[in-house]
Amino acid sequence: MHTPAQQLLLVALRQALGDAAVRCPCADEPLLAHLQDWRQRYRGMALAVVSPASTEEVAAVVRLCAAHGTGIVPQGGNTSLVGGAVPDESGQQIVLSLQRLNRVLDIDPLNLSMTVQAGCVLAQVQDAAAAAGLLFPLSLASEGSCTIGGVLATNAGGTQVLRYGMARELCLGLEVVTAQGEVWRSLKGLRKDNSGYDLRDLVIGSEGTLGIVTAASLKLYPQPASRLAALLRCPDIDAATALLQLARQHLDAELTGLEAMAAYPVALTHQHLPQLAAVAQALMPAAPDGTDSTDKTDSTSTTNTRTTASPVKLADAPWLVLLDTASPRPEAALRASLEALLAEALAQGLIDEALVSHNGPQYRAMWALREAIPMAEKLAGQMVKHDIGVPSSRIPAFLRATVPALQQAFPGCQVVCFGHLGDGNLHFNVQGPQDVPTPTFLARHEQAVNDIVYAHVEALGGTISAEHGIGQLKREALAAHQSPVATQWMRAIKAALDPAGTLNPQRLVP
Amino acid sequence: MHTPAQQLLLVALRQALGDAAVRCPCADEPLLAHLQDWRQRYRGMALAVVSPASTEEVAAVVRLCAAHGTGIVPQGGNTSLVGGAVPDESGQQIVLSLQRLNRVLDIDPLNLSMTVQAGCVLAQVQDAAAAAGLLFPLSLASEGSCTIGGVLATNAGGTQVLRYGMARELCLGLEVVTAQGEVWRSLKGLRKDNSGYDLRDLVIGSEGTLGIVTAASLKLYPQPASRLAALLRCPDIDAATALLQLARQHLDAELTGLEAMAAYPVALTHQHLPQLAAVAQALMPAAPDGTDSTDKTDSTSTTNTRTTASPVKLADAPWLVLLDTASPRPEAALRASLEALLAEALAQGLIDEALVSHNGPQYRAMWALREAIPMAEKLAGQMVKHDIGVPSSRIPAFLRATVPALQQAFPGCQVVCFGHLGDGNLHFNVQGPQDVPTPTFLARHEQAVNDIVYAHVEALGGTISAEHGIGQLKREALAAHQSPVATQWMRAIKAALDPAGTLNPQRLVP
Repeated sequence: MHTPAQQLLLVALRQALGDAAVRCPCADEPLLAHLQDWRQRYRGMALAVVSPASTEEVAAVVRLCAAHGTGIVPQGGNTSLVGGAVPDESGQQIVLSLQRLNRVLDIDPLNLSMTVQAGCVLAQVQDAAAAAGLLFPLSLASEGSCTIGGVLATNAGGTQVLRYGMARELCLGLEVVTAQGEVWRSLKGLRKDNSGYDLRDLVIGSEGTLGIVTAASLKLYPQPASRLAALLRCPDIDAATALLQLARQHLDAELTGLEAMAAYPVALTHQHLPQLAAVAQALMPAAPDGTDSTDKTDSTSTTNTRTTASPVKLADAPWLVLLDTASPRPEAALRASLEALLAEALAQGLIDEALVSHNGPQYRAMWALREAIPMAEKLAGQMVKHDIGVPSSRIPAFLRATVPALQQAFPGCQVVCFGHLGDGNLHFNVQGPQDVPTPTFLARHEQAVNDIVYAHVEALGGTISAEHGIGQLKREALAAHQSPVATQWMRAIKAALDPAGTLNPQRLVP
Repeated sequence: MHTPAQQLLLVALRQALGDAAVRCPCADEPLLAHLQDWRQRYRGMALAVVSPASTEEVAAVVRLCAAHGTGIVPQGGNTSLVGGAVPDESGQQIVLSLQRLNRVLDIDPLNLSMTVQAGCVLAQVQDAAAAAGLLFPLSLASEGSCTIGGVLATNAGGTQVLRYGMARELCLGLEVVTAQGEVWRSLKGLRKDNSGYDLRDLVIGSEGTLGIVTAASLKLYPQPASRLAALLRCPDIDAATALLQLARQHLDAELTGLEAMAAYPVALTHQHLPQLAAVAQALMPAAPDGTDSTDKTDSTSTTNTRTTASPVKLADAPWLVLLDTASPRPEAALRASLEALLAEALAQGLIDEALVSHNGPQYRAMWALREAIPMAEKLAGQMVKHDIGVPSSRIPAFLRATVPALQQAFPGCQVVCFGHLGDGNLHFNVQGPQDVPTPTFLARHEQAVNDIVYAHVEALGGTISAEHGIGQLKREALAAHQSPVATQWMRAIKAALDPAGTLNPQRLVP
């Protein structure tokens, strides 16, 4: 039952937005898609899920909630991996969905820019750019459901960061509703603007805690004339890291992505999604029994057992590298540059097998392998997940220090390591020993696993969250691992811009 | 004479830094280089110029000044064009020079990054990168004296923004002394880091008002294998703008810069620095009498008269474009791409004359012409200067609206227009009518000229400061032309991080 104050707020919200735009979760309409995160790790409750249809309506919702002292959780596609977009369990917060603000407002081909509302789905924005003969390069697994407002609020990364940058680098301007329900409009399509503090970048990545993004001006690029990918086998992680530098020298900006996959996640893909792993068969084959071919520590394994690999050898065992390229030149010219790179990499011993895409389906098959890994991982059971970054030059040192430390603390654990080597960003996920039920391992050891991983990250000058953000999952870890001065600044800024704490309470800010 | 409180502060500063590091301006040592800006528009006074030798000493200075309620003006190479780095006239502020923090701390080739102290001169950083076989691409006119701390505090732009971005995009991490004299160290060499608010970008461009940059981690790039420039004549500004887009399609990231020069600044260069303008002779020749060859409105001009051009025809008259390219490919391959672009541009009527550099001296001569313009301008007399930005697609509309408006308000005035067309950033400077002495014109009309220019900029969604920043020169204009919400946010952030107002008082924040 709602309190009288809650009833007053709901009446006011319905007056402002119309009845259909203010929904209260109930048995008939649980609104789970708005209350539970994508990983199903957090399930909250809300007083209402409201869906304003314009910037002015968003501002009205904020003013009403501020007046009632009610917290607001802004939500785009609800694809956060850190519980950043779902309400807490109190049932007193309002979920503010931006999904009805879903119009592409303007495309300016001569300025290579477009302006879109925050609720536009990323794929819709990509498509609108493509329809104008241009490229919006941000690309990530959830692009079919995540929204532009969400990717900007979290500064999303993805597969093309090496060339085009993260969401931050692709944004030219914002329209933001402040915690006071005012509208800051700065949708300028400018490449250069040194008039005042960089408020745009302060909002980008602030996870809805400083303001609500309602529209954005975005950078566009010419469509590349050609794209090629190569799937490569490197003898060890040092070779993969050196390959990154050689590839940048040879290709410079034509190198658009460099993804790395250790043997174990490839083996998991062979096991759980064999069709998607087929492209890797020649380089890192599935073993005849359907598991991987790397050395087996578990000789008792039978058909249905867990795929195994020796994580102690993670750094010193072969890695698959997916190298992605794009060029304004014809495909033959790009292929010549790519082959010159691969010839030198072979000569230097940085790769020992190479497969270059010869057509669109092969290109997509290589990416499908890389993109299948998170799903294969999910099918293999829950893990303690990390989204860490260290300077690329320190990735080998990170693996050589961290993997044995985990092995020692949790004998039999497996590390599933893959990710954006080109950006120094690894997904470094830890699977408990085979003889311990997954929920038990997580409940007992998640914190200890994190402590080991994050201590090594910190020692190497890295980050505990390279692209997923902080949300509620990593708030305590952030407080523990960032400089106390940074924590003070974050708190001071939050207090200055949202003194009542209305916007996404208890998220991000330690 | 110093007050007792000032004497106490000076004693404490000398104890902390040593006597030689604390200098008071006096008749024997006026320290003008620290008290007057580069354009000699602002001349201040200071209690002392202090030169700490380490981050800890910077922090000590800040703590002492904060305790005494004394304002601090951080200063790098003192090359601000907006009076951002000189003290006010009170003689009560401290100039804090970062010039002794001038060490390159680390270069990490495998991570393509380097770490340097804030007082390193930009050219020194470029040289250190080059010595490691790498490129630090930031390049601007004052690179021989401006410091890294300064270019980051002001988010400097320059000639390579189109490809490599502004100073902001080239910075991976900062070390900053806060207004409380604490040190925030975040010199991580990470491409991706979503752990908390983007404090780095908040400090970058804050002009020393939120914290003092003491060191920075910078992005490096592979050295290009080849560089070529082309000097082109476009029939009008529409053609020059369309050429930008065609060049991006053809060259993508191999297009590193696109600079535009109207006929009048080229004529000024012919007149005042003829050797540096010789490269343009074939495209936009000097008239036989040493002035320009464009149509003359002033038929009474004699040999020593002012070079003339019809500014009404600015948008519809020929422009010179300097197109800069760099590639990891051999020069012949880059030349083929460039020539394919130029052939298409000729066919489309976007250019009617073209000159491609055939060797290093020709390449440098083309850039020398472009870089000579500010000096030629200076030799032609003082002007009302602007550093505006609008979306590239709106540059023609901006010129067609603004130039006639100025002509109408100030008959006989001339517009000197040139700059970074590729970034939508024009230097748009207004010279008074020939029969009005320059100081008189400036004293009487500077504000009115600014009002006309900025009104047109605002109407077209532009910025009053694309790259030079705000400092003291444009503080009132910023308040007048930015959203009141942005002003509120800026004030709130300044008050939150520097509540006593110790850091660069009365600068930037409206």
